[in-house]
Amino acid sequence: MNEYLPGLAGVPATQSNISDIDGENGILFYRGYPIEELAEYSSFEETSRLLLDGRLPTAAELADFTCQLNENRRIKFHTRGMMKNLPASGHPMEMLQTVVASLGMFYPGSDCLTGGDACRDLDYIHNTTVKIMARLPCIVTMWEHIRNGYDPIEPRTDLGYAENFLYMLNGKEPDPLLAEIMDVCLILHAEHTINASTFAVLVNASTLANPYTVMAAAIGALSGPLHGGANQRVLEMLKEIGTPDKAEEYVDKKLANKEVIWGMGHREYKTKDPRATILQGLMDKFMAARGGDLNPMFEVAKAVEAVCEDRLAKKGVYANVDFYSGLLYSEMGIPADQFTTIFAIARSAGWLAHWREQLSDNRIFRPTQVYTGEPRRSYVPISKR
Amino acid sequence: MNEYLPGLAGVPATQSNISDIDGENGILFYRGYPIEELAEYSSFEETSRLLLDGRLPTAAELADFTCQLNENRRIKFHTRGMMKNLPASGHPMEMLQTVVASLGMFYPGSDCLTGGDACRDLDYIHNTTVKIMARLPCIVTMWEHIRNGYDPIEPRTDLGYAENFLYMLNGKEPDPLLAEIMDVCLILHAEHTINASTFAVLVNASTLANPYTVMAAAIGALSGPLHGGANQRVLEMLKEIGTPDKAEEYVDKKLANKEVIWGMGHREYKTKDPRATILQGLMDKFMAARGGDLNPMFEVAKAVEAVCEDRLAKKGVYANVDFYSGLLYSEMGIPADQFTTIFAIARSAGWLAHWREQLSDNRIFRPTQVYTGEPRRSYVPISKR
Repeated sequence: MNEYLPGLAGVPATQSNISDIDGENGILFYRGYPIEELAEYSSFEETSRLLLDGRLPTAAELADFTCQLNENRRIKFHTRGMMKNLPASGHPMEMLQTVVASLGMFYPGSDCLTGGDACRDLDYIHNTTVKIMARLPCIVTMWEHIRNGYDPIEPRTDLGYAENFLYMLNGKEPDPLLAEIMDVCLILHAEHTINASTFAVLVNASTLANPYTVMAAAIGALSGPLHGGANQRVLEMLKEIGTPDKAEEYVDKKLANKEVIWGMGHREYKTKDPRATILQGLMDKFMAARGGDLNPMFEVAKAVEAVCEDRLAKKGVYANVDFYSGLLYSEMGIPADQFTTIFAIARSAGWLAHWREQLSDNRIFRPTQVYTGEPRRSYVPISKR
Repeated sequence: MNEYLPGLAGVPATQSNISDIDGENGILFYRGYPIEELAEYSSFEETSRLLLDGRLPTAAELADFTCQLNENRRIKFHTRGMMKNLPASGHPMEMLQTVVASLGMFYPGSDCLTGGDACRDLDYIHNTTVKIMARLPCIVTMWEHIRNGYDPIEPRTDLGYAENFLYMLNGKEPDPLLAEIMDVCLILHAEHTINASTFAVLVNASTLANPYTVMAAAIGALSGPLHGGANQRVLEMLKEIGTPDKAEEYVDKKLANKEVIWGMGHREYKTKDPRATILQGLMDKFMAARGGDLNPMFEVAKAVEAVCEDRLAKKGVYANVDFYSGLLYSEMGIPADQFTTIFAIARSAGWLAHWREQLSDNRIFRPTQVYTGEPRRSYVPISKR
């Protein structure tokens, strides 16, 4: 009998080739490649193909994959019709789960997954991967327009993944530096070993459910406030602080009261989250490029970062990826309640890689329970209760 | 370091008070009560309340709960509008996941789940439970009409849970014996410890995601062919056999070829699945009541059951609950691809009980992985691949 560990903390639930974390040294690897190198030299399209296939694509493979992603951006008017029936006040993550769940009805074919323990229909797997990854940013940006009462902006096939997302969101071609930052943000969020949403992928995939259904489950898990959503809170915190001179007092008060400072610390890293270091560099680059014409929240963030570095670095607590991403997203014209949908767009690459991996050596998840309830007892008629 | 066990087989993932299985003796308990007693004396409404609260309700509590379930059957026209945009050819489980995922947008309020490790807003929990349980059968039956191009049939508030489901499906009050059988089927499928879909509930609930989102994840897991759907295959098998005299040859050929005979055996039970015994009795009762005017598949089923009993009982393999349920559902006018949605309707009681239990002592699921991938390597420029 194995020991019961709440949340399965420390219990290995899968064997995986996809990513690895060296928490002591603050290193994150995708398929063996350090995240710093991918952020510097790769693109989200290439990194996705790496995560999915296990190796960097050749030039021809990458061109092919990019073309497929670009050509699969059209969304059926039925989906638009569905969206128009959803309340504008609903959370975008709920919208995304709803729409992704529906896609399997439009694109059947998962019967090939029923043939045995492992799915061998690699065409189906690849085509579905493209369909999902290409459509997610389109769905998210369509909703942004529809919930505000406007018709969505049609996708373009001549723009890269990050560029087209920002184009469909704002209706104009994005600032190249912001598009580059978005591309890096997508790379940084594409995969992070087994957390609750990736675990939800494994559990659902193990029943051989269709991949849209599997992705809908993962989006649901990511929507939970204990999982996604911290960058939205960082932004709210910065607004609450208001000006750089208030940062020290705010941080010290929070620390004295043992309250959370959003965007600080990560359970997996004993040193600085390597993704945060990358984003910090991009933020500095953006601030330098923008010069005086800058959202004042950036200065507040720099001040909070400096105070926290002074107070917390000796305890191994540093700013994490959420500390920087919300502020940058906000500069791109993205509303705060859409930050987690961007996380989902990026993580779709990792989720789909785990879906493939689960299918390749599948066993249905069926853990046990420790029964702590009533012993056997007899039914009592309602008149005698 | 814990051992890696594929599918977490034998690994305890939760402590639970809700149900227990004694596989050696073929006993299933809900909150300590044997399933036979609940099938005989209880109703689905009462059993649900038992699963949710941990005790049999008083007469007043049951009346209150039944009234709430009856009064919460109305579905917004927005949901109908969504459904009209879904393709009729899609699987009803995908429809159900889609619509349930959307409900959280219409019924917000899960912010109360964010306050801490445990949710204390019992009113929200109870009201959401009622909303979900009351609406599921309405959604399923609405879809049956909409996918055939007809307007759905409005729910009635004067019919019990099982009765109203059959009424909304067929547009007329059901045969009382069939309504009784449906009620028992719902009781029998309401809960069954930790399988993949219930585990999906725990994983998603642990992020404090909203309960509609959690249920959508569970519906997704249940939709997988390795999980739900066996009763549909039993029905197809009986049709393939065609007449009772072909049963012996069919079974012996399957056994000789080591092929699956659908509806036989259950991994949890070494003896006969207690739910199958109950359904067998109901099927016999139905056959006696119907007399000569009977679907010939019933006689085929009895013949298969007799041959299998002779060949397999000595190995501890008996007919399971799926062997009987599909045939009975078919008699109620339910299409085979809707059988798994009925499973979801019934299991919603158990899923919601597990959702409550998870919230009451929550820790986010974050198991680990055994990394088996590439060691650290350096990025290779695309021109050198």
